[in-house]
Amino acid sequence: MKLINYTAAGYTRAGAIVEDKVIDLNYAYQAQLKAEGKYRYEEIAHAFVPATADELYQGGKESLQLAQGAIDFILANPESFDKKVIFNKEEVKVEAPVQKPGKIICVGHNYREHILEMGRELPSNPVIFAKFANTILGPDDDIPFYPISDQLDYEAEFTFVVGKQARNVSEEDALDYVAGYTITNDVTYRDIQRRTLQWLQGKTVDGSAPMGPYLVTSDELQDPSGLDVVLKVNGEVRQKTNTANLVFDVKKLVSFLSNLMTLEPGDVVLTGTPGGVGVAMDPPQFLKDGDVVTIEIDKVGTLENKVKATEVVPTV
Amino acid sequence: MKLINYTAAGYTRAGAIVEDKVIDLNYAYQAQLKAEGKYRYEEIAHAFVPATADELYQGGKESLQLAQGAIDFILANPESFDKKVIFNKEEVKVEAPVQKPGKIICVGHNYREHILEMGRELPSNPVIFAKFANTILGPDDDIPFYPISDQLDYEAEFTFVVGKQARNVSEEDALDYVAGYTITNDVTYRDIQRRTLQWLQGKTVDGSAPMGPYLVTSDELQDPSGLDVVLKVNGEVRQKTNTANLVFDVKKLVSFLSNLMTLEPGDVVLTGTPGGVGVAMDPPQFLKDGDVVTIEIDKVGTLENKVKATEVVPTV
Repeated sequence: MKLINYTAAGYTRAGAIVEDKVIDLNYAYQAQLKAEGKYRYEEIAHAFVPATADELYQGGKESLQLAQGAIDFILANPESFDKKVIFNKEEVKVEAPVQKPGKIICVGHNYREHILEMGRELPSNPVIFAKFANTILGPDDDIPFYPISDQLDYEAEFTFVVGKQARNVSEEDALDYVAGYTITNDVTYRDIQRRTLQWLQGKTVDGSAPMGPYLVTSDELQDPSGLDVVLKVNGEVRQKTNTANLVFDVKKLVSFLSNLMTLEPGDVVLTGTPGGVGVAMDPPQFLKDGDVVTIEIDKVGTLENKVKATEVVPTV
Repeated sequence: MKLINYTAAGYTRAGAIVEDKVIDLNYAYQAQLKAEGKYRYEEIAHAFVPATADELYQGGKESLQLAQGAIDFILANPESFDKKVIFNKEEVKVEAPVQKPGKIICVGHNYREHILEMGRELPSNPVIFAKFANTILGPDDDIPFYPISDQLDYEAEFTFVVGKQARNVSEEDALDYVAGYTITNDVTYRDIQRRTLQWLQGKTVDGSAPMGPYLVTSDELQDPSGLDVVLKVNGEVRQKTNTANLVFDVKKLVSFLSNLMTLEPGDVVLTGTPGGVGVAMDPPQFLKDGDVVTIEIDKVGTLENKVKATEVVPTV
């Protein structure tokens, strides 16, 4: 399934992209339950295929399977429900597949070829740092560029979302705890990142984690290794790698992280970025208003966002 | 108000400590509304004085004032409601005044005397790093000591909770955005913190942010400067400072952070720790099973937790 959230008529709800359509998962399941004669179809649907993706992850594989069954039902019976269940993609705004994760964990220095090229040794433990949920944008959003720095930079990141509560999980079992895969641009205010030793302040500016174009669920993408990752700015290739080059791959990360902390459904892990970021170019090339950043990952799709100069609006 | 969450009969709800009593704020307000003849007292109470502290912060000063009025009402009319509103403190478990903050932002190197003593220059920008909400414990909890390290350390931290959405706020207006003040022990697995340059992994282990004993709301503590901070291990003083020594005080932090990101009601900021942590002693003195860590801050109370050796239980 290509899982998203979408916004239509002011409501943001979980959906799936099927060709050029967006299907509302909760309504599709309600339709199926109602057709099966379940009087409490609304409550049952809320319990098993809830209305937002963040809640849907809590139901684990069971909820994702029921959602897939509901898609099949509604495509076979498109007129069977009184609420609008199927949209044309252009009728909706596509949002990130996670809206308010409890954790966004980012991995640094995780591409082998890039580390070796810099003359460093491969690390024995992953470097991890955080972003907060205020950073999340969807594939239809522009990346805000606030006038707090002139060093806005991009980082292509293969990303996974946790699908099951995980504590002290082995590498062997790790992929069972992954709901699916997506792409994040770990947008970074480079000078702000580097003005202290801790990177957080340059990493968690509002709107600095565009994510999408959707989550490919792990039943459809069973092996997250060997995927090409390419990032372009205005069509020019800037980053290019393959997830086979990750020092700490998805299995190792689930195991490592869950040994330190309880991972919850909906938690997001950005697995790191390869060489080729703007600050490392000679001379450095930072993003500017109007630039288009495109990240493509095999089997996961294409995330494209435009950079837009934006004021910081004070609260009242 | 001394605001907490409390657990009784399996429910965790917002309460206030008044002498040796705990008052359920939502039920107190329901009682008041019902006495005023409001037929929809339950719904109105849910809107204005909701059942958990995390939701209560969203209502800002208005909700805190209504809650205070409800406390006054129920103390004058203790028998006026059919649900239990007033508990003896020993009947309940006191929980942290925030349960699931969207952000826990920690400040490093922020006590002037300690920085100068180390021969460093005062920083021009705060060092900030993160913990996630999996770290939060209450004053009645033990600090779990997982067998992933033998270097468990303490850090006394004067803490504030955001009471109003804040973006690009001036230092002059900053205190208006603070719901109140509490204490956090920024429990740190020191060797894990230091095995990479980014501190997150040693900072966000489950249960590494005991918080309490309650939140003193900012109407009662209007000036967060000039407060003595003392941390003891088994009665021995290890850290001692005063919030007057903060390089970046509460006003500066609200302004600095809200220039980077939108702060939301319930977000938590740990303002930093002074010298005297275990790792800096000669020889280093780390925490061990059974140790009692006590942090006392003027006008904010005393947070005391015992360290307890704990296994990591794998999920199934």
